[in-house]
Amino acid sequence: MAGAITLERIIALQAAYIRCIDNNALEEWPDFFLDRCLYVVTSAENHKAGFEGGIIYADTKGMLIDRVAALRQANVYERQSYRHIVGLPNVTKNGGDSAESETPFMVVRIMHDGQSDIFATGLYLDAYRTAGNELKFSKRLAVCDSSRVDTLMALPL
Amino acid sequence: MAGAITLERIIALQAAYIRCIDNNALEEWPDFFLDRCLYVVTSAENHKAGFEGGIIYADTKGMLIDRVAALRQANVYERQSYRHIVGLPNVTKNGGDSAESETPFMVVRIMHDGQSDIFATGLYLDAYRTAGNELKFSKRLAVCDSSRVDTLMALPL
Amino acid sequence: MAGAITLERIIALQAAYIRCIDNNALEEWPDFFLDRCLYVVTSAENHKAGFEGGIIYADTKGMLIDRVAALRQANVYERQSYRHIVGLPNVTKNGGDSAESETPFMVVRIMHDGQSDIFATGLYLDAYRTAGNELKFSKRLAVCDSSRVDTLMALPL
Repeated sequence: MAGAITLERIIALQAAYIRCIDNNALEEWPDFFLDRCLYVVTSAENHKAGFEGGIIYADTKGMLIDRVAALRQANVYERQSYRHIVGLPNVTKNGGDSAESETPFMVVRIMHDGQSDIFATGLYLDAYRTAGNELKFSKRLAVCDSSRVDTLMALPL
Repeated sequence: MAGAITLERIIALQAAYIRCIDNNALEEWPDFFLDRCLYVVTSAENHKAGFEGGIIYADTKGMLIDRVAALRQANVYERQSYRHIVGLPNVTKNGGDSAESETPFMVVRIMHDGQSDIFATGLYLDAYRTAGNELKFSKRLAVCDSSRVDTLMALPL
Repeated sequence: MAGAITLERIIALQAAYIRCIDNNALEEWPDFFLDRCLYVVTSAENHKAGFEGGIIYADTKGMLIDRVAALRQANVYERQSYRHIVGLPNVTKNGGDSAESETPFMVVRIMHDGQSDIFATGLYLDAYRTAGNELKFSKRLAVCDSSRVDTLMALPL
């Protein structure tokens, strides 16, 4: 009995996901997804135009694990720090053991000299499914408002 | 039986409102309000001084519908994009079928070249009433922290 | 019977705390804490290195009351305004009458000419206890992402 997908559970998942990234516990990041999943980072322009590809594209949890390994090797993540803020989730569908939501996000980048600026804003388009007692992402599309997102590749959104 | 006004319902309304604006579904925006309502955009300075007027003032849903029509004709909204982030709502009154809350907001503006900056911050002073099964705004005062908000007139807050 | 510490109660406390500061009702700020408490503002760098001190350090409610008195005398808080946005709280422990959470925050500073910039971002590391019917902070560590936080001393985080 996994129970219903409540707003409270969705809030908890969103908060835990962000915490994982900002605490630099990237090795735990793939566990937020089902084995067969869709994780895409793209721009609003491309998303509107119906392009599936995006800047980052992964459709298995294995690909996310590979991605973390590559990030660790490149070691780019540590040079500056990031702070994610997610807004209130908007649950657009809820059908018992699966649900969908849209959640705005903002990422602030903090440089070594202390200068902070807005690195990215956008919308998470998410689909959830219960897996045992846990709630996981079956899909996360991170749609960035700006098209200038190439440098984003250093960190997961 | 419309049921009690829970924090969960307030969160859902706040999130849906923001989504409507940022998804540019402005035609649905007036439906968040009761027919007789108060919608005001003002500055903290004017609000403190007790001025009722504000930069935008509407006291019926019909005025909000007119406003959307004017925005669509002026066609200014599409030139740049905006991302609203609302913080956690602070419920200051809750009396069964009506309630009040204060919710901080921030709006980021994303220019065509990808540059993002803070466009506005402030506080939503809201009053809610249940209308049938739905929760609606009887009052929304968007009090902007900065007095330099004339350009705000392009989009609803 | 104080009841369980729900996510809803934590959200309400976080929202009320921010509201108190941004509404400049600083005299009520110490009441969010237990008499014996820990309130520290520090940087991520110092926190990681295990330094206990921080930029601000208080371990009784009395010290917080003194701090407000000092701020009022210095009268620095009114010259510019601040807007806090807190993200979704991540409850990391919950044991009946005590709990812990991590909550991201961002503070925007609004200058008199209307210019707005990101003043600080970071993470609240909080511990809660119920005191009668109320939820209070037994500990609040405001860990700022940037090390350039000396000017922060003007306002509580």
